[in-house]
Amino acid sequence: MRILIVNPNTTASMTEKAAAAARVVAGHGTEIIAATSKSGPASIEGHYDGAIAVPGLLAEIRKGEAAGADAAIIACFDDTGLEAARALAAIPVVGLCESAAMTAALIAQRFTVVTTLERSRVLLENLVRRYGMGDRAKVRAADIPVLELEDAASGALGKLRGQIERALDEDGAEAIVLGCAGMADLVQSLQREYGVPVIDGVSAAVKQAEALVAQGLVTSKRGSYASPLPKAYTGAMEAFAPARR
Amino acid sequence: MRILIVNPNTTASMTEKAAAAARVVAGHGTEIIAATSKSGPASIEGHYDGAIAVPGLLAEIRKGEAAGADAAIIACFDDTGLEAARALAAIPVVGLCESAAMTAALIAQRFTVVTTLERSRVLLENLVRRYGMGDRAKVRAADIPVLELEDAASGALGKLRGQIERALDEDGAEAIVLGCAGMADLVQSLQREYGVPVIDGVSAAVKQAEALVAQGLVTSKRGSYASPLPKAYTGAMEAFAPARR
Amino acid sequence: MRILIVNPNTTASMTEKAAAAARVVAGHGTEIIAATSKSGPASIEGHYDGAIAVPGLLAEIRKGEAAGADAAIIACFDDTGLEAARALAAIPVVGLCESAAMTAALIAQRFTVVTTLERSRVLLENLVRRYGMGDRAKVRAADIPVLELEDAASGALGKLRGQIERALDEDGAEAIVLGCAGMADLVQSLQREYGVPVIDGVSAAVKQAEALVAQGLVTSKRGSYASPLPKAYTGAMEAFAPARR
Amino acid sequence: MRILIVNPNTTASMTEKAAAAARVVAGHGTEIIAATSKSGPASIEGHYDGAIAVPGLLAEIRKGEAAGADAAIIACFDDTGLEAARALAAIPVVGLCESAAMTAALIAQRFTVVTTLERSRVLLENLVRRYGMGDRAKVRAADIPVLELEDAASGALGKLRGQIERALDEDGAEAIVLGCAGMADLVQSLQREYGVPVIDGVSAAVKQAEALVAQGLVTSKRGSYASPLPKAYTGAMEAFAPARR
Amino acid sequence: MRILIVNPNTTASMTEKAAAAARVVAGHGTEIIAATSKSGPASIEGHYDGAIAVPGLLAEIRKGEAAGADAAIIACFDDTGLEAARALAAIPVVGLCESAAMTAALIAQRFTVVTTLERSRVLLENLVRRYGMGDRAKVRAADIPVLELEDAASGALGKLRGQIERALDEDGAEAIVLGCAGMADLVQSLQREYGVPVIDGVSAAVKQAEALVAQGLVTSKRGSYASPLPKAYTGAMEAFAPARR
Amino acid sequence: MRILIVNPNTTASMTEKAAAAARVVAGHGTEIIAATSKSGPASIEGHYDGAIAVPGLLAEIRKGEAAGADAAIIACFDDTGLEAARALAAIPVVGLCESAAMTAALIAQRFTVVTTLERSRVLLENLVRRYGMGDRAKVRAADIPVLELEDAASGALGKLRGQIERALDEDGAEAIVLGCAGMADLVQSLQREYGVPVIDGVSAAVKQAEALVAQGLVTSKRGSYASPLPKAYTGAMEAFAPARR
Repeated sequence: MRILIVNPNTTASMTEKAAAAARVVAGHGTEIIAATSKSGPASIEGHYDGAIAVPGLLAEIRKGEAAGADAAIIACFDDTGLEAARALAAIPVVGLCESAAMTAALIAQRFTVVTTLERSRVLLENLVRRYGMGDRAKVRAADIPVLELEDAASGALGKLRGQIERALDEDGAEAIVLGCAGMADLVQSLQREYGVPVIDGVSAAVKQAEALVAQGLVTSKRGSYASPLPKAYTGAMEAFAPARR
Repeated sequence: MRILIVNPNTTASMTEKAAAAARVVAGHGTEIIAATSKSGPASIEGHYDGAIAVPGLLAEIRKGEAAGADAAIIACFDDTGLEAARALAAIPVVGLCESAAMTAALIAQRFTVVTTLERSRVLLENLVRRYGMGDRAKVRAADIPVLELEDAASGALGKLRGQIERALDEDGAEAIVLGCAGMADLVQSLQREYGVPVIDGVSAAVKQAEALVAQGLVTSKRGSYASPLPKAYTGAMEAFAPARR
Repeated sequence: MRILIVNPNTTASMTEKAAAAARVVAGHGTEIIAATSKSGPASIEGHYDGAIAVPGLLAEIRKGEAAGADAAIIACFDDTGLEAARALAAIPVVGLCESAAMTAALIAQRFTVVTTLERSRVLLENLVRRYGMGDRAKVRAADIPVLELEDAASGALGKLRGQIERALDEDGAEAIVLGCAGMADLVQSLQREYGVPVIDGVSAAVKQAEALVAQGLVTSKRGSYASPLPKAYTGAMEAFAPARR
Repeated sequence: MRILIVNPNTTASMTEKAAAAARVVAGHGTEIIAATSKSGPASIEGHYDGAIAVPGLLAEIRKGEAAGADAAIIACFDDTGLEAARALAAIPVVGLCESAAMTAALIAQRFTVVTTLERSRVLLENLVRRYGMGDRAKVRAADIPVLELEDAASGALGKLRGQIERALDEDGAEAIVLGCAGMADLVQSLQREYGVPVIDGVSAAVKQAEALVAQGLVTSKRGSYASPLPKAYTGAMEAFAPARR
Repeated sequence: MRILIVNPNTTASMTEKAAAAARVVAGHGTEIIAATSKSGPASIEGHYDGAIAVPGLLAEIRKGEAAGADAAIIACFDDTGLEAARALAAIPVVGLCESAAMTAALIAQRFTVVTTLERSRVLLENLVRRYGMGDRAKVRAADIPVLELEDAASGALGKLRGQIERALDEDGAEAIVLGCAGMADLVQSLQREYGVPVIDGVSAAVKQAEALVAQGLVTSKRGSYASPLPKAYTGAMEAFAPARR
Repeated sequence: MRILIVNPNTTASMTEKAAAAARVVAGHGTEIIAATSKSGPASIEGHYDGAIAVPGLLAEIRKGEAAGADAAIIACFDDTGLEAARALAAIPVVGLCESAAMTAALIAQRFTVVTTLERSRVLLENLVRRYGMGDRAKVRAADIPVLELEDAASGALGKLRGQIERALDEDGAEAIVLGCAGMADLVQSLQREYGVPVIDGVSAAVKQAEALVAQGLVTSKRGSYASPLPKAYTGAMEAFAPARR
């Protein structure tokens, strides 16, 4: 089984970190193939970065599917471009926020997502609600620019720990979800420190992708994820025109 | 007051139709400026078309804002790229579905949106729920490819009328919302025929845009629509890098 | 276009303030006609005042419609009698809370309504939920009797500012809605002070009323807002009997 | 224990029917006191009738409370004026729709309310949602003018039975709620005929009123139902001015 | 009328306290019959205790029904086994949380349930949501083991009062619901002390049970509460096999 | 990795069918251990059967955990006893309905669960709502007694196919979830026949259980799933007393 992880931002070190986290949990016989978007922002912080990242993301998914991937993961906690990717691909595609929220729901009735910036907080709150967990999950922002997570000296970990502590004290959180693909390396130490489950989106997504492939399930092409209709695409996006099937 | 209408698909005839509808309702002193996306799909039918249309849309909004527009309208009923556009622009940006749903809510307690394809039906259902009207609105698809609306001989109008009749008979609809920017020219005749309010998204959006400008209101830059942070953008999307403010 | 603003309380100074706010935002060619209820409470603070104010309000709407108004506004943030007015009138009727909440939703994902008394807080919370925005809006009470807003020396402004500051700090508010018709004169200074959009219900309602008229839309008479059936009305309410149409 | 039933319409025969239904279920030692509104519509069909009925209703509640009633019931299934009555009175006040929906919820997971006119259907749907049962209850209208229920030859019963049958067949209803105070005399025969619980609002409300009195509970005066503040009332409504306490 | 109260834990002193509370509010002619479960935990604190308590509870309900009870009450605030009991019995069965929440809703728009342990808090939050009151009720835990309520020297009352005070100050609670069957004796003094309605589940349930019996209503056997189908039961549970009807 | 599947009914042939389905999707290195409850009903059809099945289920989970299982699955689509099992066990426990609904949500925006009996339909509707998917999933009952699924000549498959066809035609279902553990052997043929994803709860649960184990995640013991407190258990349930930890 080959699982493609696409980092929709263009920072290769984040791709590597996500791929490493993925390989830790991948099952026997699963090959993790990591790809970094070739166009778009160096990090995804809010709606605009996310929207511009989508074409580069979709290009990698199309390429990876053509190269034989069995499932794809979008390695950004905002689940950027998830619906478009599901419409595009014949293979299943999973997101980090969706996978992590589901995983948390299997082991806790209440949980808190701790993310980076305030602008991402509301975005994730909306996602969590759309996934049906608005009543059981809160979202907190630790005021950390995404790329500071790559810098050990940035104080980012301290801010993150501060919000986890508030989640446990004030939110009644029974588990913590780390709300950024770049936090994957912190799971084990935080789980030990706080004595509650700590969930990483990359790990959760790998297992959901494997689960779908093992069950022989692919995205339904009936209804909302129907394959794009063949039509003319113009200008800079010409290459994205859906193939006639 | 100058209001920019951006058609996020690349079909100029649809832009013209939207602009014409806009000018009918525009207030005294409002200038309607219409722009057609230079890159992306010829019509937006589902999540994939919508995602690929966004960069071309955002380019037009940035250009229009620089040229002095006071507000912008995204002339696709899917509200494609609406959140990204709000984060990008300093001027207010409104969508068709959001504007039309609000307008319907002021004159009816229950209404039905009639759109084109089944793949757009679920997408609009999700939008209407996010706008808080899932309990009072239904969405129906008339099985009409978007570009058939440009072709009087296509039978599209008959299909549309069939769904309106079912909405009145089966949904308890008190008003009808036309769920595609390309239906704007049908409002008056349908309203006369069925004796209930019929709402067109373009018209509704023009008035919402004017309303915001008249009140001196712009998109909040505190929280979820904060301006994009300056950062490197790579590859084909390099030109989209946010300006340092 | 003639827009009728009815103040459903009997305090003429509040009518004047609302009319002044309305005229500031009214479009070219819009005439604002203000009326004060002839019977009922001097201010509307809670459910009882609101209920008793309705007949006086409806009398003014009926009179104004007969005199040729194209739309009506109920100038109380509780949207007192809104549904009855919509059933009664052939012209569209808009409320302040509904209009302001919609306006806020176009420029912010999260907002807070700041109103006068605690007893109005829950009432407005219920309204905002019914309008579908319970998930994105909070309501705060500043503990100000309505008529103190007419008295510059009352300390009311200080209390209001205190709640706005808490909304920004604690609620994640991206915009502020002023939850009383009597606060219309404070919008500009508060917006400058806090750097977030501040929305006044009167202004918002004027633009929604104009929007409906410009689109040729009236309240649907199919279903919940059907015209009152002709029937006997008795006693003090005899004059309110619906006319046979 | 003295329980006041106020019919907020002015049709005395409906008051009598409600009082008779109340007496059937009233506990040992409960005295049922029935009052008919002195002003307003002969029947309540939709929002406008309901709004105009409220002052007459509140006058009866105030009078009944002064005369020593221990609790009050508003004998219209629309729960007309319920919130205002709770704010006004020191004694508890219950509504028919609220009481019946709660009663149904104790013996069925899904139920259908069958009411008179389409214009009341949406109104009741909104009430049932506000009472938290929108997910488990449907509302159907049988197209019966309220006063036809007083006329055995009107065919009203046949229409009502038709909707009950559809509720059982199509809605998965496990119980039926009769959605008009004027249907109280039909409960027993319908229950026998259809073999499912049939709930009448008047009966349900009597038991809720008794329950509150037996527990020594009165409406909370903290928050939304706080007693009306003393203030000037003007014109035809002068007599409604709240007493200084 | 004979009303059976079953204490689903095995602590007889709690049964007695519940029975005493029941008798205080029971109507003239109502006989309260109390039963204590013969098997299971000494107190119900969380999901596991609750699940194991159910067979003992159901055995008492079956026995009581056979002995002629007209209705049954499950005297644990978790509404343990309520749905199974409704399916089993021909007589109506009511729970404490459901009854108390409904009662609170008749006299307050916002209320807070104060329960014992944190592990019960989320359980009750889920119940209150299922009963449709998640938007108007909060749940607080006072960190009191259930059996400490039986011990005056335990400090339990102080902890309970602390949470009531926070509910009034921070939650906007207009009424308080005591969220444990063992708190029934505290209602009157707390109500006097805090000046808001205080609701006890046992008292509320007695009146709901009486209300159903007086209306001649029993649990619907159509749909979700259909009588258990006759079938083989094995092992320790053999005696629970449903009788062939 | 050892995954325990407990069939909470006492019919060994259903255990075998579930174990067989589990082994088809289990990952390399996963051992499936199947156990059948020793006490309770031969099939679980409705709330009563479900409640009585729980002690037998919990006994098997305790035994299996002691024997070294890494995770447990409750092999009944009603998720019978799931919350109690999570509180009891230190290892993660997953249910069929929860796992299947999550799996469907990853590949479809709208889906329909097809179950056996009407009495289970509402029960599953409630579960699906609690899992946050009430807005995107419908539940249908095929009117099949559970044990008829074991009998090829029963006509059960025809009834099931009838409901699947209605789900596709009337519900807008994009995927089908089989709502009974005993339907696991039908997945492949139905998926081929209807061309949409068909999800089996047993398969979905195996992959969720493996996913949790691979991530090193266990049920949170903070809050609602805290381990049972040590206390006396009486009578037939004495053996279920929680061990002192």
